[in-house]
Amino acid sequence: MPEATLTKTFEFSASHRYYRNEWSEKKNLEVFGACAYPNGHGHNYMLEVTVKGPIDPVTGMVINIVDIKAAVLDVLEEFDHRHLNLDMPHFKGKIPTTENFAVVLWDKIGRALPKGARLHGIKLHEDEDLSIEYFGGR
Amino acid sequence: MPEATLTKTFEFSASHRYYRNEWSEKKNLEVFGACAYPNGHGHNYMLEVTVKGPIDPVTGMVINIVDIKAAVLDVLEEFDHRHLNLDMPHFKGKIPTTENFAVVLWDKIGRALPKGARLHGIKLHEDEDLSIEYFGGR
Amino acid sequence: MPEATLTKTFEFSASHRYYRNEWSEKKNLEVFGACAYPNGHGHNYMLEVTVKGPIDPVTGMVINIVDIKAAVLDVLEEFDHRHLNLDMPHFKGKIPTTENFAVVLWDKIGRALPKGARLHGIKLHEDEDLSIEYFGGR
Amino acid sequence: MPEATLTKTFEFSASHRYYRNEWSEKKNLEVFGACAYPNGHGHNYMLEVTVKGPIDPVTGMVINIVDIKAAVLDVLEEFDHRHLNLDMPHFKGKIPTTENFAVVLWDKIGRALPKGARLHGIKLHEDEDLSIEYFGGR
Amino acid sequence: MPEATLTKTFEFSASHRYYRNEWSEKKNLEVFGACAYPNGHGHNYMLEVTVKGPIDPVTGMVINIVDIKAAVLDVLEEFDHRHLNLDMPHFKGKIPTTENFAVVLWDKIGRALPKGARLHGIKLHEDEDLSIEYFGGR
Amino acid sequence: MPEATLTKTFEFSASHRYYRNEWSEKKNLEVFGACAYPNGHGHNYMLEVTVKGPIDPVTGMVINIVDIKAAVLDVLEEFDHRHLNLDMPHFKGKIPTTENFAVVLWDKIGRALPKGARLHGIKLHEDEDLSIEYFGGR
Repeated sequence: MPEATLTKTFEFSASHRYYRNEWSEKKNLEVFGACAYPNGHGHNYMLEVTVKGPIDPVTGMVINIVDIKAAVLDVLEEFDHRHLNLDMPHFKGKIPTTENFAVVLWDKIGRALPKGARLHGIKLHEDEDLSIEYFGGR
Repeated sequence: MPEATLTKTFEFSASHRYYRNEWSEKKNLEVFGACAYPNGHGHNYMLEVTVKGPIDPVTGMVINIVDIKAAVLDVLEEFDHRHLNLDMPHFKGKIPTTENFAVVLWDKIGRALPKGARLHGIKLHEDEDLSIEYFGGR
Repeated sequence: MPEATLTKTFEFSASHRYYRNEWSEKKNLEVFGACAYPNGHGHNYMLEVTVKGPIDPVTGMVINIVDIKAAVLDVLEEFDHRHLNLDMPHFKGKIPTTENFAVVLWDKIGRALPKGARLHGIKLHEDEDLSIEYFGGR
Repeated sequence: MPEATLTKTFEFSASHRYYRNEWSEKKNLEVFGACAYPNGHGHNYMLEVTVKGPIDPVTGMVINIVDIKAAVLDVLEEFDHRHLNLDMPHFKGKIPTTENFAVVLWDKIGRALPKGARLHGIKLHEDEDLSIEYFGGR
Repeated sequence: MPEATLTKTFEFSASHRYYRNEWSEKKNLEVFGACAYPNGHGHNYMLEVTVKGPIDPVTGMVINIVDIKAAVLDVLEEFDHRHLNLDMPHFKGKIPTTENFAVVLWDKIGRALPKGARLHGIKLHEDEDLSIEYFGGR
Repeated sequence: MPEATLTKTFEFSASHRYYRNEWSEKKNLEVFGACAYPNGHGHNYMLEVTVKGPIDPVTGMVINIVDIKAAVLDVLEEFDHRHLNLDMPHFKGKIPTTENFAVVLWDKIGRALPKGARLHGIKLHEDEDLSIEYFGGR
């Protein structure tokens, strides 16, 4: 059976701050610039989730859209309209950069997808000009 | 000679319906949701066609845009402004999902391209949030 | 109180056909081109709904997003994934052009909005390159 | 001399929270939904600034891009990567909705533009689906 | 009969240079920056053409897309893939700014449209962030 | 340490002409069409630069955005608002097609990036419908 990849895009909103407690405020500003401002800022994140697998000969689908939507929206609800540093235990001691955020989403979405669906990659866009692609660390 | 990939994007419009004759109407609605409505619905499809090959040292091109446009538009003319289930023999007994549609387009475009041009992949977008990428079944 | 306009965008999918019964097939093809093909074609419609009014000094809003979403989605559910000619009584004897469709949506959305919200205009995009703006006939 | 409008688009990032202190947490959640979450969330704002005026017969311009960029970026620097409620005195006792934010930006940009340039309107997009247009309260 | 506006979008490519012969090179660079570089630069222009009129009760259209496409493409063919300063007599002694270009296109498109179609406005985008809207000088 | 790719997008403007001196004007027009017009035309280029590497456990980054911006903008400044054939020694005897341009940018950006950052690929868009992806010739 031929394989194909299906990519579904999702949008949500969150805020974050780049800051290391063990560094001085001066060093934080030098390394992270405006991203280190104390009260944080935010983004409309766009997330592309790609699943790979054979095309089912009965349904003609790699995965039913209903199933991928249910799984991913369930994961994203936890992050939507939240402050990643203050509200999310995933970022205790870890800066919620787009890179680290992608790793967290990969792990959670990989577990949330229905049996048989193989997560191939995710692409997390922080804004129109910056994105991180993650394939499980490969 | 260094290799590169060239991607050219095309747009067209078509309608379709997701439905299996051997299933009850109830089961079709359960599996396919609104996509099973009897008179179908439609999309503005966007198709990215990617060709890979060496950069010709004389023309500086992987493939002349004129040639890829001629080949792909010739294929798409058959589908443009059509109802995929009712008008297209390719979907007799096969649901015209984006996945199955991508396979059909891959085969037809692969044969339509001029000699020497190697079809690398196609990406078929059903709307802004859903796309299928197909590389010949690999 | 200062006035502002709020525009919220919605997407849905439908199919349609341009055809006049009293004309020959030949004349229909001459006037409407591929839009006259017998089994129809479809689009991902994008609808911008604009409401104008004073900014409420307590909520800081022209209209609560929850209210405009509820009203417009309720209207669009009737049209989503439908064939405008075959499924919609609004287009009995009337071609479902983007123009005529905009008039129907204006009337229905105008009535569906909560009291106090003034519908200012709608812009209906059939695809990325074609849109109709309607302000109630003015 | 013929008049034209020039529109220049800018992007920046900020976070905010919708909340009224005199309301219970329950009422805030009822009215503002996820926008009332305590630590706020954020957006990539897109701002369109429109200036209207005669086309200068010597330069062929309504306004020099250098001048409009300097004026608007100077205003936006104050808001970029900030938390509108916590960092911005403009929103003391006023919810930083897109509507209220547009009014603040209108006033500041109107004063920042060089003499002779007439601010015609601004359109502030909170995300791809929601925007506020403001023309000075008219 | 209710009136509506129809907007059709077109794309083309051209190059230009901002320069006044009677000024020194230094002054040109001061006023026009990189736009004054001697060999010019270029853009993918996007042009929105808006026609306003009653919705024809027979066809359901403000103007047939075939007619607006024929008229506008005929005008744009003259400019596409050209250097506006060197190839176009319209810009003899006039800098081909987006403003001046919009005036030229307004005049030519207004004359090219079929009888009965009323040109309402044009919006010429030089890139994603800069556009000029022109309504005949009003 | 898990690896990820970071993609940052840049925009600039340039003009070019497709022409081989040893060919007749007739042959140039046959092969290159309007791209062979004598005074050239131009584009708003969009360039995606992708860097791959481990996510730094301290900063949470593959590469600091400040560093990639500095390196790439330094390279692009040389090309921005220029005529690729007339102003750029890189295209002496070589047509500045998007393919050849991508190779030049790959080499220059690869050398400009800070030590430790591995250039993974670049994607150069000539307009919305045409792009070249280059991975160093692989």
